[in-house]
Amino acid sequence: MTPDEFRAHAHELVDWMADYLAQAGNRPITSTAAPGDIRARLPAVPPDVGEPFSAIFRDFEQLIVPGMTHWNHPGWFAYFPANSSPPSILAEMLTATMGAQCMSWNTSPAATELEQVVMDWLRQLSGLPDTFTGVIQDTASTATLVAIISARERARARAGTSDAQLTLYASGESHSSIAKAVRLAGLGAGALRVVPVDDVFALQPAALRAMIEADRAAGMVPACVVATVGTTSSTAVDPLPAIGEIARRNDLWFHVDAAYAGSAALLPECRHHFAGLEQADSYVFNPHKWLMTNFDCTAYYVRDVPLLLRACSISPEYLRTAHDAQVVNFRDWGIQLGRRFRALKLWFVLRSYGADGLRAMLRKHIEYAVTFRAMVEREPGFEVMAPSPFGLVCFRHHPAHLADGAELDRHNERLLARINASRRVYLTHTTLAGRYAIRMAIGQWQTSAEDVTTAWDLVREAAAAA
Amino acid sequence: MTPDEFRAHAHELVDWMADYLAQAGNRPITSTAAPGDIRARLPAVPPDVGEPFSAIFRDFEQLIVPGMTHWNHPGWFAYFPANSSPPSILAEMLTATMGAQCMSWNTSPAATELEQVVMDWLRQLSGLPDTFTGVIQDTASTATLVAIISARERARARAGTSDAQLTLYASGESHSSIAKAVRLAGLGAGALRVVPVDDVFALQPAALRAMIEADRAAGMVPACVVATVGTTSSTAVDPLPAIGEIARRNDLWFHVDAAYAGSAALLPECRHHFAGLEQADSYVFNPHKWLMTNFDCTAYYVRDVPLLLRACSISPEYLRTAHDAQVVNFRDWGIQLGRRFRALKLWFVLRSYGADGLRAMLRKHIEYAVTFRAMVEREPGFEVMAPSPFGLVCFRHHPAHLADGAELDRHNERLLARINASRRVYLTHTTLAGRYAIRMAIGQWQTSAEDVTTAWDLVREAAAAA
Repeated sequence: MTPDEFRAHAHELVDWMADYLAQAGNRPITSTAAPGDIRARLPAVPPDVGEPFSAIFRDFEQLIVPGMTHWNHPGWFAYFPANSSPPSILAEMLTATMGAQCMSWNTSPAATELEQVVMDWLRQLSGLPDTFTGVIQDTASTATLVAIISARERARARAGTSDAQLTLYASGESHSSIAKAVRLAGLGAGALRVVPVDDVFALQPAALRAMIEADRAAGMVPACVVATVGTTSSTAVDPLPAIGEIARRNDLWFHVDAAYAGSAALLPECRHHFAGLEQADSYVFNPHKWLMTNFDCTAYYVRDVPLLLRACSISPEYLRTAHDAQVVNFRDWGIQLGRRFRALKLWFVLRSYGADGLRAMLRKHIEYAVTFRAMVEREPGFEVMAPSPFGLVCFRHHPAHLADGAELDRHNERLLARINASRRVYLTHTTLAGRYAIRMAIGQWQTSAEDVTTAWDLVREAAAAA
Repeated sequence: MTPDEFRAHAHELVDWMADYLAQAGNRPITSTAAPGDIRARLPAVPPDVGEPFSAIFRDFEQLIVPGMTHWNHPGWFAYFPANSSPPSILAEMLTATMGAQCMSWNTSPAATELEQVVMDWLRQLSGLPDTFTGVIQDTASTATLVAIISARERARARAGTSDAQLTLYASGESHSSIAKAVRLAGLGAGALRVVPVDDVFALQPAALRAMIEADRAAGMVPACVVATVGTTSSTAVDPLPAIGEIARRNDLWFHVDAAYAGSAALLPECRHHFAGLEQADSYVFNPHKWLMTNFDCTAYYVRDVPLLLRACSISPEYLRTAHDAQVVNFRDWGIQLGRRFRALKLWFVLRSYGADGLRAMLRKHIEYAVTFRAMVEREPGFEVMAPSPFGLVCFRHHPAHLADGAELDRHNERLLARINASRRVYLTHTTLAGRYAIRMAIGQWQTSAEDVTTAWDLVREAAAAA
């Protein structure tokens, strides 16, 4: 494909892309494909001879698009949002075209320095003190693994041995990536202590303190505590000030996971949820969730850069450059050597919307959540299941004839299936204190008040038909 | 930015992108920016109010592009190639627009099933038996970490304790990501045994066998050996059949790293370098290097899928779906939960070029390397430093008045700086058996025979001026 053939095809694609964005809501949000359906329609062997782009694009439209789950549909209320946005997509087009490998300053000076600039912009917008330095990671999973490994290395160094039995602490509401990181880091599944939560699903500091003391008395080496601002199930907020204080007194690494809710730190009225964050050793949040920036783009902040480098840097001869002593080589700040030019999309987004534009979008979603919650609370037979400090409302249908228990859970499971069968909205579920809960996560950039009302209408219709 | 504003800007960008591809060779390949130059020209604080796209794009052109290292310039002979290509860029445009999160089958059925299909296509093209199953990872660093963690888990399970002192083996020419993975996996820096290489930089099986025996006699638990097809410094090929046999007899995990050279397995005439690969437990190579597919796209193949799942899977309630028992959830096949729709670009590339088109491209680069090597060999005062089985030629200038040693190294360092100062080509260096070597890595998709001749002319001119 020559550059001019590319030009023609890319112009065609741009029209498809703009239409996709404009008409996202007209498409069924989920696919009806059964497992194996799509694979069965694709050839089992690769082609020997190249095919014209028209044939490839036709298959994309006919086989792939109908088999997709449309995360950028305005009826997206599932999981958490994974926003793309027009300026972010424009940046991805340029990033893909240049195809630069941003592992070292030398392999793309502008990419490294732009990353430093936008990560500092984001630090300022998040109200983090300038004792924090940021780096873009691909995902929160990876950033969390880096945090756990950093905690492990610090604890082992302080214990003076790698045989110390380390213990780590997080609430049962913390994200699965934390338990996974503890396992990947080789600390053993039992090393992660599950700290109980209170009735609003926030970690109980007194329980944390008691567990640390018991572990220490038993000869363990408490190494790390992870607090969450905005848990995945219910967006609960762990009490950072108390946890930070316990971490400090006990010499624990203090990691704060705000993968979803971190974007809300841009709002002064939400800033109180992040009080105590300045005590953290490391902090992660995902602009690719709720800040208009295409996946993948995770912001990872640390206070102790030299320690991060000790954990992650390695410099073979073939990567050494004349500038190494004067520059930042972000390959030494995470797991991967190879790095995409992710700073560009964050820069395009921050400049296109400005802080005010991003705040307006966040406020809109939070306001929708307040409205939706009020509708649930007003409706007989429904109940909310947790506080809603951000854009998520957890609720269930609770008809009078059903008591708490397995049957009520199955009732809501069926209800959710019925809502999603409309293929106009998509919601997911969780369990809270053992009870099945439907999650309504509001945060897709094209979602309007009308989309929220539609979802609520579908919920009520499904309940009425039950 | 509305979808229609996006449409207008994206069309402008497409013309810029097509021009960038068409005129890649007219641009200086590297930047003259000094550390801090670019950062100094960017505002230290983020904008409050959104800016028009024209202002953002102007800054992109004026501040960012001149500060980039242009990896897709036809004069790219540095590191290894990181090819973008027109069909791959087209796919990236669609991937960015849909912004789907491909963690589970359910969160995008077509993405999961297309990944299964293209990874099987690539398996067939690489001559791997169907006992291997593939998954796309972001980078070889991550895939290697998964392999090392898998080896660790298997060895610990077999030893019946997590206290066993594991040892791992790779040659001193193996990639830095292996030493890094051993450290990240928490095995301690000393756990990686550096196996000596022979005079063509390939791992010595006899030495490997002796080291394993000595470690076992000392109470260690040998757990893993990593062999490389196409090392980073010189593209040396470790003897897979002998290493695989040693791994089998000693119950070691056998990981094969062909990050760069794996693409050459598509060529029947190169297949002999991969003999013995069928004994591997895991295999990694990067279509994003030499197979026209945009970074990031790493192919990771394993034989024991259940073991991979034991190492990497974790399923909290909020991720469970009705289909979990019937489908593949690729989130359980690696480090990250979140996953981009990377299969799309690989599909576009494999179909656009076909196997024959990709083979023609690979053959062209290898032929250029043969030609370049012959020119070096013919030229008095130059010497090649290693065999060139693929697209890389390692060489140095060796004037008669300089003996082997530090001065000759510095001479070649200066020579390389002079070549690169042309900003028409970009080459990098390594050390081989302690000697400074210039690396000429041929593999950029737009590189022509003329570009190779230009590079050689620049080398000779620089040597003449020395």
